[in-house]
Amino acid sequence: MKLLEERIRKDGLIKEGNVLKVDSFLNHQMDVELFNRMGEEFRRLFPSEKINKILTIEASGIGIACIAAQHFGNAPVVFAKKSESINLDGDTYCTKVESFTHKRVYDVIVSKKYLGPDDHVLIIDDFLANGCAVLGLIDLVQSAGATIEGVGIAVEKGFQTGGKLLRDKGIHVESLAIVEAMDAKTGTIEFREQ
Amino acid sequence: MKLLEERIRKDGLIKEGNVLKVDSFLNHQMDVELFNRMGEEFRRLFPSEKINKILTIEASGIGIACIAAQHFGNAPVVFAKKSESINLDGDTYCTKVESFTHKRVYDVIVSKKYLGPDDHVLIIDDFLANGCAVLGLIDLVQSAGATIEGVGIAVEKGFQTGGKLLRDKGIHVESLAIVEAMDAKTGTIEFREQ
Repeated sequence: MKLLEERIRKDGLIKEGNVLKVDSFLNHQMDVELFNRMGEEFRRLFPSEKINKILTIEASGIGIACIAAQHFGNAPVVFAKKSESINLDGDTYCTKVESFTHKRVYDVIVSKKYLGPDDHVLIIDDFLANGCAVLGLIDLVQSAGATIEGVGIAVEKGFQTGGKLLRDKGIHVESLAIVEAMDAKTGTIEFREQ
Repeated sequence: MKLLEERIRKDGLIKEGNVLKVDSFLNHQMDVELFNRMGEEFRRLFPSEKINKILTIEASGIGIACIAAQHFGNAPVVFAKKSESINLDGDTYCTKVESFTHKRVYDVIVSKKYLGPDDHVLIIDDFLANGCAVLGLIDLVQSAGATIEGVGIAVEKGFQTGGKLLRDKGIHVESLAIVEAMDAKTGTIEFREQ
């Protein structure tokens, strides 16, 4: 998606250690107009009328998923939570997700009430790197007996293994921008042709 | 807002200890169509054209804030984060917030890049109870020298002190539904007339 690639070139910051900061428009401050263009593009890439639920993970996937849902007939959005809360029933699906950013392992849970065999789920998240978060969400969907219709990602780090891992499993993954390489010293970034 | 009150009566669950669970449509599974009606109502209640930024706190405020932003000329949404991340610069405003739900104290931070003296901020959150989260957000806005235009809340627990505390400070608080009383035994709930 050219619009997102251009925005990353313009406002993204490349840091040492393959860190791409897009927090001025994607995951700390959020550009809702851009999110709407991204939502349109997700709809184009995932045209299936079967999609009746969007699943994401807190926190930075939520805004993208909610805006995108408007392009999927206002499908309900469920966000998986990173730790148990006293406001949740014990009746949850649970998986473990390792966070690259925070260098720790989270319990990730979703209430059994909001994911079931009738659900055709589009998973949406802001980043795909090693794929741990998305694999956790897929595990939750499968635990619920629901169907995975696809995985929609804003920014994929194409030089990490997550995208290949998911596509090799036969999962329909679409990333709006795939970073092939980036260089903190020169500030340059290269996207995969799509 | 009658639509929200009716939805709470229909789908809210009242639990012992003054816990109101609205996670089927507000803060775990999210009804984006309802959020759009709530966003329209926030715009009606906060008509100031000065509002140029929406501030919320992760995680459950994000969806409401992003959808609402569409009714405020696509104002950028910033969400305050509950703990330091290696993906954030050290250059942040920080405050401490006590969580009633999780029974702990969080560091809550926002990057100095996304909140400044030119900002006229509408704070949006899903719940207002003792007011700790909103007071933390106000502290961040004030640290940035930004102007607080108002506080928009989905569900206020009117029998707790947060709403009075904020209104006594002269802050323009609007809650779309104010729970005056609720009873876990009978499952009844009473809303404040607005």
